[in-house]
Amino acid sequence: MTVIKEKYKELANKKRLERDSKWNLDWITSDEKLPAKEIKDVINYIDSNKLLNELELEITNSTAIEITQNIKNQKWTSLQVTLAFCHRASIAHQLCNNLTEIFFDEAIQTAKNLDQYQLDNNGGTIGPFHGLPISLKDNFNIKGQSTTLGMVNFCFNPPKFEQDSVLVSLLRDLGAVLYVKTNVPVAMMMPETTNHIWGTTLNPMNKLLSAGGSSGGEASLIKLKGSPLGIGSDIGGSIRIPSSFQNLYSLKPSFGRFPTFGSRSGLPGLESVNSVNGPISNNLRDLKFYCESILNSEPWNYDPKVVELPWRNVELPKKLNIAVLIDDGHIKPTPPIRRGMDIVISKLKSQGHDIIEWEPINHYRLSTLITEFFTSDGGKHVLKETLKVGEPLFPYMENYGNSKNIQVSKLWKLQDERSILVKQVLDNWLSTSTKTQNGKPIDAIIMPVTPFAGNPIDKFYNYVGYTSPFNLCDFATGTFPVTRVDSSIDLPDAPRQYYNEIDCKISNDYNPEESHGGGVSLQLICRRFQEEKVLEILEVLKKLIDYKD
Amino acid sequence: MTVIKEKYKELANKKRLERDSKWNLDWITSDEKLPAKEIKDVINYIDSNKLLNELELEITNSTAIEITQNIKNQKWTSLQVTLAFCHRASIAHQLCNNLTEIFFDEAIQTAKNLDQYQLDNNGGTIGPFHGLPISLKDNFNIKGQSTTLGMVNFCFNPPKFEQDSVLVSLLRDLGAVLYVKTNVPVAMMMPETTNHIWGTTLNPMNKLLSAGGSSGGEASLIKLKGSPLGIGSDIGGSIRIPSSFQNLYSLKPSFGRFPTFGSRSGLPGLESVNSVNGPISNNLRDLKFYCESILNSEPWNYDPKVVELPWRNVELPKKLNIAVLIDDGHIKPTPPIRRGMDIVISKLKSQGHDIIEWEPINHYRLSTLITEFFTSDGGKHVLKETLKVGEPLFPYMENYGNSKNIQVSKLWKLQDERSILVKQVLDNWLSTSTKTQNGKPIDAIIMPVTPFAGNPIDKFYNYVGYTSPFNLCDFATGTFPVTRVDSSIDLPDAPRQYYNEIDCKISNDYNPEESHGGGVSLQLICRRFQEEKVLEILEVLKKLIDYKD
Repeated sequence: MTVIKEKYKELANKKRLERDSKWNLDWITSDEKLPAKEIKDVINYIDSNKLLNELELEITNSTAIEITQNIKNQKWTSLQVTLAFCHRASIAHQLCNNLTEIFFDEAIQTAKNLDQYQLDNNGGTIGPFHGLPISLKDNFNIKGQSTTLGMVNFCFNPPKFEQDSVLVSLLRDLGAVLYVKTNVPVAMMMPETTNHIWGTTLNPMNKLLSAGGSSGGEASLIKLKGSPLGIGSDIGGSIRIPSSFQNLYSLKPSFGRFPTFGSRSGLPGLESVNSVNGPISNNLRDLKFYCESILNSEPWNYDPKVVELPWRNVELPKKLNIAVLIDDGHIKPTPPIRRGMDIVISKLKSQGHDIIEWEPINHYRLSTLITEFFTSDGGKHVLKETLKVGEPLFPYMENYGNSKNIQVSKLWKLQDERSILVKQVLDNWLSTSTKTQNGKPIDAIIMPVTPFAGNPIDKFYNYVGYTSPFNLCDFATGTFPVTRVDSSIDLPDAPRQYYNEIDCKISNDYNPEESHGGGVSLQLICRRFQEEKVLEILEVLKKLIDYKD
Repeated sequence: MTVIKEKYKELANKKRLERDSKWNLDWITSDEKLPAKEIKDVINYIDSNKLLNELELEITNSTAIEITQNIKNQKWTSLQVTLAFCHRASIAHQLCNNLTEIFFDEAIQTAKNLDQYQLDNNGGTIGPFHGLPISLKDNFNIKGQSTTLGMVNFCFNPPKFEQDSVLVSLLRDLGAVLYVKTNVPVAMMMPETTNHIWGTTLNPMNKLLSAGGSSGGEASLIKLKGSPLGIGSDIGGSIRIPSSFQNLYSLKPSFGRFPTFGSRSGLPGLESVNSVNGPISNNLRDLKFYCESILNSEPWNYDPKVVELPWRNVELPKKLNIAVLIDDGHIKPTPPIRRGMDIVISKLKSQGHDIIEWEPINHYRLSTLITEFFTSDGGKHVLKETLKVGEPLFPYMENYGNSKNIQVSKLWKLQDERSILVKQVLDNWLSTSTKTQNGKPIDAIIMPVTPFAGNPIDKFYNYVGYTSPFNLCDFATGTFPVTRVDSSIDLPDAPRQYYNEIDCKISNDYNPEESHGGGVSLQLICRRFQEEKVLEILEVLKKLIDYKD
């Protein structure tokens, strides 16, 4: 037993050393220039302390749209841009431990090739992402890199992938420069980003709060502007939770809108609910830029599961019909999140938008059902891989250790139940037409992403009931920042009747001082395949809220 | 045991009596006017023998488009149209045993209501199908009717459904008149239409040949013009096989294009491959009329699994790139089907279309994999329902009796394999660009639907390898008639090297005299969600082939 225990530590150690041998020492900031331990908020640390030169600061503070335009008009070379982000990502990692695979040399070579292409083609670019560094969540396979998913047995198994995930191929075809992959929880199945290989990723808004998961590495890196645009994945909240904890814009699309083939999955072959991937950014317009570029490149030629549905321009009604949900009746959100909801509701009302209450239907059962799907193989795949090297399961994943590998007849019953529940949610959505002033159904729902403005580390309590129902419904969903926790305003609730034990714990755990500075973001939910509408309504919200870090 | 055996016969008998009490005796043709036993081809029997009056003959020989136009311009009332089809369907059933539930009284009431609506609204109609009788395969639930799926235990279980399937609701909203449901094989999982309740449906082109399955009742009824337009369903070939055996036009769409929610399934909860429904008709333009009407009525508001993809007009290139497959290397089609392929290929070539060979990839494994999915619950659902009443399994369904209710971990492996195989098919499709003259990939594939021009009853040998791979690929597929078997031309093959035992049996079973008059139809395969393209290319083929019964 001891031997096996050693094995997982040994493998993890070897993998870390291998990664660490690749740092460019010129880009590493010396310890004395790093923030003191007591500094919790590091989002402006790199800029304030001028850890990069002026050009690097200018480049890394630009949006993806600005970067591609400045390369196109030859203000910057692809190489300059790539070097700047490699440098900044290295420091971001020093601050918050968000990277897994790094491949700066390949990135530099790609950037040089792109510059040469531009020289050879009178300034012409190979695609909309020409020269744009894009960071990727660890689950994307990249030729020549490994994909560990935070599972020790995957450190060298295989040591390198031979093929890119299809989204990765597409990004390359459109001119992107790939340079880093980012940290995830074990098998990507926890709401916080930690594992036995890379450790815990920290939240740059408040290093004592969780970065969230599973796309926590992405969100942490992007918040520090170590990446202008990154791609996360979401099967129960994994794009939305970390994006909300880091106050970022993000899009969780419907399955079949963006290519997913050829990524490494924590639960390969699971189809009762499908993982999707989508963009995360500090800049809302970059999400649209990304989506429009991908969808207009006929991604259905890359992945047979993608629907032939190009980018569609959407015209919004002047007055939106929005349903809001502040409390799902199972876990009451903590005070800052409720304040965030209040801010958004009053701003929307002030503009004459029609706000009604969302009366949730089936949310809780959908959130338990999705867990049954995740573990319907009895956690067999995850257990097999972790046991092989003696890797212990984190408490968040205990249900992987005590679930049953059910028979297909039982799975069919669960899937049938899900189809009925989802149909009822659709009917519920359409029935809002009886409650709105113009007699039309709602355009969207706005609600919390989690009960937290960044939870204290280890205290998420695994409740993803605000996000996971919309994975089963496959609705297009985005996140948007509203404000930050202010310890002087967001006071704890008085004791109340609690819905259940976890509700009580979360309420009691809430500590304004501890949460100060945490991200207060919400999610916007539109119907299936309405990604364009999500992004348009986010623009409306952004203008109203005018959030700045 | 004997008691149980009796039970299934008793229940089936009771159900048949109940149905038979609903016939309108005025619409029943007396025995002496029915065709003599030796008459095999009955497709023109009703018209030649004037079993209907002139108006009824005129109405029932009209297309769905003509019918709706003539109701709209008040040449005919909805009632006249409904009465004509109720009458003709009754005779069609006498000829070929194709109906299950009949509800003429409700249909007549609906038609009267529609006429009243038109009177009250200055001739206005309630939707594109105003007054159009549409027949439905038995699996669609209809309020007030039962859904037996050819399974005795479903005869009175429930005796009546309380709710329409969502497609049924939509059809009603668009003005359709529903009047009959049509026969299917047990659980819809056999390629021939027979069961212990309703018996065997016959093929009007040649009553000694199989009508095919599982939408055999639909195809048989439509061929006899007992319905202008019917809806079948397809999970492995169930629209295409009977449509091809009856020389009809049909469309098997991709999953998510048309609503499927709320139908009764033979394998409820199965999602590794999804059943779809689509139209069958004597008239190609009626398919387009149907699809355009449904897709423009926002069916995604009826079923959350429908994609927000309205009808799209398609412009075809002047010269099509078509891949053809005559023989899949596992079962060689019988001589009339190969002649059908030759006819189509030479006509296409004569018009300058670019014809290349389809080099099939993964077809055979996909066809075995789909069977593994069908029986992945160990046939448990089907067995449970049949055993309850002592109903024996037909030989075609033996694998439902000897399959294993596998664990989800194994299912995930199979699903993962399927995703990879389907991706390879897509890549194979796109790689045809290296073989075409214009360097573009193929627009479509043309190939047989089955090896048969209607198989001798009981001799299909359960090989659906020409159709089922395209269910797993989820490609949009149509069928079109080419010719009929001519015993003087379609001579048996000389003995040859056979691929396997079934290939040998099928070759030896083929008897030109026996197959004479059988339908020679083929399928046209476009990519996923390319239903519009399928219908456009079918128009091109129809003009070239100019098939008439």
